[in-house]
Amino acid sequence: MESSGSLENVDSRVPELNINEEERSDEIKKEEELSVEQIFAKKEVPSWKKQLTIRAFVVSFVLSVMFSFIVMKLNLTVGIIPSLNVSAGLLGFFFVKTWTKLLERSGLLKQPFTRQENTVIQTCVVAASGIAFSGGFGSYLFAMSERVVKQSEKTQDGLEYKNPELGWIIGFLFVVSFLGLFSLVPLRKIMIVDFKLTYPSGTATAHLINSFHTPEGAKLAKKQVRELGKFLSFSFLWSFFQWFFTATDDCGFQKFPTFGLKAFEYKFYFDFSATYVGVGMICPHIVNVSVLIGGILSWGIMLPLIETRKGHWYTDLDPDSMQGLKGYTVFIAIALILGDGLYSFAKVLTQTMADLHKKIRNRKAMPLPVSEHSSPVTKTLSYDDQCRTQLFLKDQIPTWLAIGGYIAIASVSTATLPHIFHQLKWYHIIVIYTFAPVLAFCNAFGCGLTDWSLASTYGKLAIFTIGAWAGASHGGVLAGLAACGVMMNIVSTASDLMQDFKTGYMTLASPRSMFVSQGIGTAMGCVISPCVFWIFYKAFPDLGMQSSEYPAPFASIYYNMAKLGVEGFSALPKECLKLCYAFFAAAILINIIRDALGKKRSWFIPLPMAMAIPFFLGSYFAIDMCIGSLILYIWQKRNKAGADAFAPAVASGLICGDGIWALPSSILALAGIKPPICMKFLSRSLNSKVDGYLGS
Amino acid sequence: MESSGSLENVDSRVPELNINEEERSDEIKKEEELSVEQIFAKKEVPSWKKQLTIRAFVVSFVLSVMFSFIVMKLNLTVGIIPSLNVSAGLLGFFFVKTWTKLLERSGLLKQPFTRQENTVIQTCVVAASGIAFSGGFGSYLFAMSERVVKQSEKTQDGLEYKNPELGWIIGFLFVVSFLGLFSLVPLRKIMIVDFKLTYPSGTATAHLINSFHTPEGAKLAKKQVRELGKFLSFSFLWSFFQWFFTATDDCGFQKFPTFGLKAFEYKFYFDFSATYVGVGMICPHIVNVSVLIGGILSWGIMLPLIETRKGHWYTDLDPDSMQGLKGYTVFIAIALILGDGLYSFAKVLTQTMADLHKKIRNRKAMPLPVSEHSSPVTKTLSYDDQCRTQLFLKDQIPTWLAIGGYIAIASVSTATLPHIFHQLKWYHIIVIYTFAPVLAFCNAFGCGLTDWSLASTYGKLAIFTIGAWAGASHGGVLAGLAACGVMMNIVSTASDLMQDFKTGYMTLASPRSMFVSQGIGTAMGCVISPCVFWIFYKAFPDLGMQSSEYPAPFASIYYNMAKLGVEGFSALPKECLKLCYAFFAAAILINIIRDALGKKRSWFIPLPMAMAIPFFLGSYFAIDMCIGSLILYIWQKRNKAGADAFAPAVASGLICGDGIWALPSSILALAGIKPPICMKFLSRSLNSKVDGYLGS
Repeated sequence: MESSGSLENVDSRVPELNINEEERSDEIKKEEELSVEQIFAKKEVPSWKKQLTIRAFVVSFVLSVMFSFIVMKLNLTVGIIPSLNVSAGLLGFFFVKTWTKLLERSGLLKQPFTRQENTVIQTCVVAASGIAFSGGFGSYLFAMSERVVKQSEKTQDGLEYKNPELGWIIGFLFVVSFLGLFSLVPLRKIMIVDFKLTYPSGTATAHLINSFHTPEGAKLAKKQVRELGKFLSFSFLWSFFQWFFTATDDCGFQKFPTFGLKAFEYKFYFDFSATYVGVGMICPHIVNVSVLIGGILSWGIMLPLIETRKGHWYTDLDPDSMQGLKGYTVFIAIALILGDGLYSFAKVLTQTMADLHKKIRNRKAMPLPVSEHSSPVTKTLSYDDQCRTQLFLKDQIPTWLAIGGYIAIASVSTATLPHIFHQLKWYHIIVIYTFAPVLAFCNAFGCGLTDWSLASTYGKLAIFTIGAWAGASHGGVLAGLAACGVMMNIVSTASDLMQDFKTGYMTLASPRSMFVSQGIGTAMGCVISPCVFWIFYKAFPDLGMQSSEYPAPFASIYYNMAKLGVEGFSALPKECLKLCYAFFAAAILINIIRDALGKKRSWFIPLPMAMAIPFFLGSYFAIDMCIGSLILYIWQKRNKAGADAFAPAVASGLICGDGIWALPSSILALAGIKPPICMKFLSRSLNSKVDGYLGS
Repeated sequence: MESSGSLENVDSRVPELNINEEERSDEIKKEEELSVEQIFAKKEVPSWKKQLTIRAFVVSFVLSVMFSFIVMKLNLTVGIIPSLNVSAGLLGFFFVKTWTKLLERSGLLKQPFTRQENTVIQTCVVAASGIAFSGGFGSYLFAMSERVVKQSEKTQDGLEYKNPELGWIIGFLFVVSFLGLFSLVPLRKIMIVDFKLTYPSGTATAHLINSFHTPEGAKLAKKQVRELGKFLSFSFLWSFFQWFFTATDDCGFQKFPTFGLKAFEYKFYFDFSATYVGVGMICPHIVNVSVLIGGILSWGIMLPLIETRKGHWYTDLDPDSMQGLKGYTVFIAIALILGDGLYSFAKVLTQTMADLHKKIRNRKAMPLPVSEHSSPVTKTLSYDDQCRTQLFLKDQIPTWLAIGGYIAIASVSTATLPHIFHQLKWYHIIVIYTFAPVLAFCNAFGCGLTDWSLASTYGKLAIFTIGAWAGASHGGVLAGLAACGVMMNIVSTASDLMQDFKTGYMTLASPRSMFVSQGIGTAMGCVISPCVFWIFYKAFPDLGMQSSEYPAPFASIYYNMAKLGVEGFSALPKECLKLCYAFFAAAILINIIRDALGKKRSWFIPLPMAMAIPFFLGSYFAIDMCIGSLILYIWQKRNKAGADAFAPAVASGLICGDGIWALPSSILALAGIKPPICMKFLSRSLNSKVDGYLGS
């Protein structure tokens, strides 16, 4: 199916490799020079309809239920959810592969298992289990419940709350979850083909899926698979080993004060996460450096400076209070992200408009996809990129469908939502739906750069703006939380979809099948997740109570944020708003400078979007990513060809191994098996105190 | 100087290497095939007298003072002394190299700095600073002092003690320290050339010294040096990193319960010591496996079984009491070591006698050294071994000198010692001097296999036997401690000398210069160490008190052991003596089986000597060594040639880096700078207790 006409060129990206060579390259050089898509060239790519098989969706359903349980459990215990993309891809492969092998032996197999089908499963499962997170069962949605509200308030009378019920939750999810799918579909070519955003998780998953389906006899691919397998095992075993020493969240390698206790206090430490070292190896160096610069700027310089104003600028000493230190970091980060996102969005919009205008003037109806007989730019693309771009642009999703779908669902949603949350007015919803695509773009763009989906940040933004707008007297708290849900679902689904488009792009899966698969997955999730939550809710009557096994910590955090929100920006700590304006302007300025200097001369200018993330998370993951970057840099210096050929495999292995461990670790947690040891870090003086206590 | 006549052969031990090859082997293959001594072939080996330069001894003196301070400090604080061989070799090199470079520039250099001279410095410094340990300032010698005795006894009247005085200590050291030098000199050929004992530290030091002096242009050597440097830096930085987390002895990586807390209780854990991983890479696999088997047998099986007899077999619950559990492990280990050592000694003696007898009958006066025109066996030796053996056997130390010297010093010693310690009778001393060479051989043999010098174990043996013999009423405690000193000095000096002979063998330093250097070093040590101790003793009036900065923990342990000793074996826990007999017999039996099967078919039979060490230390270092063994095994499987060429360099790097760190860490300790963080490992339940305590 792939174009084999325009096969001159191909910048030899995968030459001579020398890791562990017992066999020297000579005899296998020919095969080694083949790129991924050249290896797959003989394999037919099924039509998009054939990629959507029934067995794929059966497997997806089973996996979705499993993952939803895991995500829900994590929601309700610690509230931090690792990326499950990789596990989904892997398990999908094993399920279907075992299934097809059995059928093959019995001679009943009608259709071979392709990587495209594998991608469809992965997409569907991620979409379905994503709802378990973006549905807010551990955050905004459960924050509305009587239990959480009553815990957070001193006076118990006249409180507004909305207890979870299976009915309205499913309804709510159905009317908000599909909007994300439509909001960014028209931009997929710009983000995947033109911007070439990395989407580290999506890329890693694609590498994994490609490696599973590599035709036999391709030695380079085999070597890559071996490297991937080696680092996958290492990463998995390493995470397994770490688990034993993590009796509580404050224990273990994840809280290792690598650079001393003072640096640890300001979140500068290496947390031994194989995932983010791998992410650092996949991301461009500038992204990793930007993240580190952001971390140094925020937790290294800004925060200590603001701390000296304690008592003047802010008085709230609770470290998690939005009116204290945390307020500065969260809102400045939002300002940076908005500045960068809006600039990029404006730029893209202008360019697209200009392009469109030109095309119309030239009497061409639409900007045509890059194809074999198009511009000379194509010639500089590698063979892989040519194949992928061609396939990616073959199955179009009409723009009218995207826009029409968005408007239709938005209308239904606008009409329905005020009936579910009477505090949320139709004009609030229209405003959200007007701005949502912009924010969805910002998030998908940032996620493509750094692998962090900031859906919950955009959700918080909705809490503050809509909450303040509705006002405390008109149930602003509940309105804010509901708005958060609407926003989070759109933004999160949009970035998931773009991530999947990237995976699809790299596995030659059709965008149409991705779109349909995500749609089906989302529909599954809208039913599965509420049901799973309902099981937990009914099984554990003390769910959400602080002291219980399932404290759902983020539920009360969200409620408190919403309470703060209705008081407006004036409730923020002093000077915070000014700082936000400054950082917003700085983000735009940096972008203008970048564009003015041109791509080549601006390589040293950091990306504001990447800089924003460590503002509220701290620098630990930036350290991980920079270590990944450093490893790649040294590797490239010593052996460019080897690094180019194997770095993606190694990075994917690191990400996947850690990702797969998320599964058994969640199962262990579900089974109530807790790590036996706490690796604790105490200062010298504190340690002698503890020794004294333990001795007595 | 080296034989270049018999250069046919040489089993190509250093072929094709592929670690980090940017450059392929083709163009440098010729040089790569050169072995160490082929590379050095053009360098003249100075005569043994020229190896002993004045500058070498000046540098040795300065370094000896420095190391004596370090060792003394460690003696008096924790009582555990790391091997300082490597630091001595390295610092000696830097001192003299800087010195000669300066002279070279000014045109005043008369004699170039050779590796033989370097070895002389290293030997001298190790001999001198060794006295700071074997002098017993932290153990048997200080155990006699009023301060320690009074602390250990309830009644304060009628106690026997001997306070340290500069005069008698120097005298005592001079009459006992030189015996070790003479006791094993005649056996050096058997141990170094015939047995080919490894002496890991000696080998590592030799590799280091060789690498420093490698002539330019030798690419393999350069690569080896690069590997050594890389792993040396890694090991040094790793130890440095570990330091920060070791606020107390119970903190840090050295107490990492790698296999869980229960296994840790029984001393099964990986302590992340680069030194012993390196040692494991140098030792033969069977040694590493033997150590592990010993650990499993003792702490894994025997101890838990004996523990079930608690209350029946033993009642003393103090874990460090010789009448409790510790008694079993210590004495069984001694039984194993004695069984193996005595068997080997008897075998060697028989063989030597038989050989001697044959030679005399064949009218040849002495067994001739292996030389160019000797037996066909020589032909199978590598070029390196040929050179080394030839040089090693060239400068003979006459056996009459060794035996005569031993008898002369022993006589002086027998006459003098009872004047210093009137509790120690002349017949005690004669008995010690009769058995000492046997025990010195045992220790030097074990040290050659495993790098552990068990001098203090043989010292303990003397405490028990001589103490019991003298009896409590005749000052048996002090007699035992003095006997311990006599024994330890002989045994420790003998194994140090053999270690240095190995280093000398590998650096083509003459045995004579080694012998003289060790003699001069010992003489230095006999003066320097007491003086350094005297400074501490006078500077810190509470030296030796439990609560002080310098508690000298082993002093009171030794005193208590001696007290137990005068009560005889009957004071040992029940069944301990029977077990000792059994293990003694087992050690001999295993040796008989080994010899009966022959070398090839007995590869799987463990060595009792190696098995004994974990009996009282636990298995943690066995784990380290086995990991080293495993790394080497995998490396050899994947790339035999590369492993053979680079494993010694990597192992030496690991040992050296950690060894060099001992110096700055000691300086930090002397400066009173303590590590800031404690990495603590708590069980889940204990952790929540501690969290509760810290929270309140």
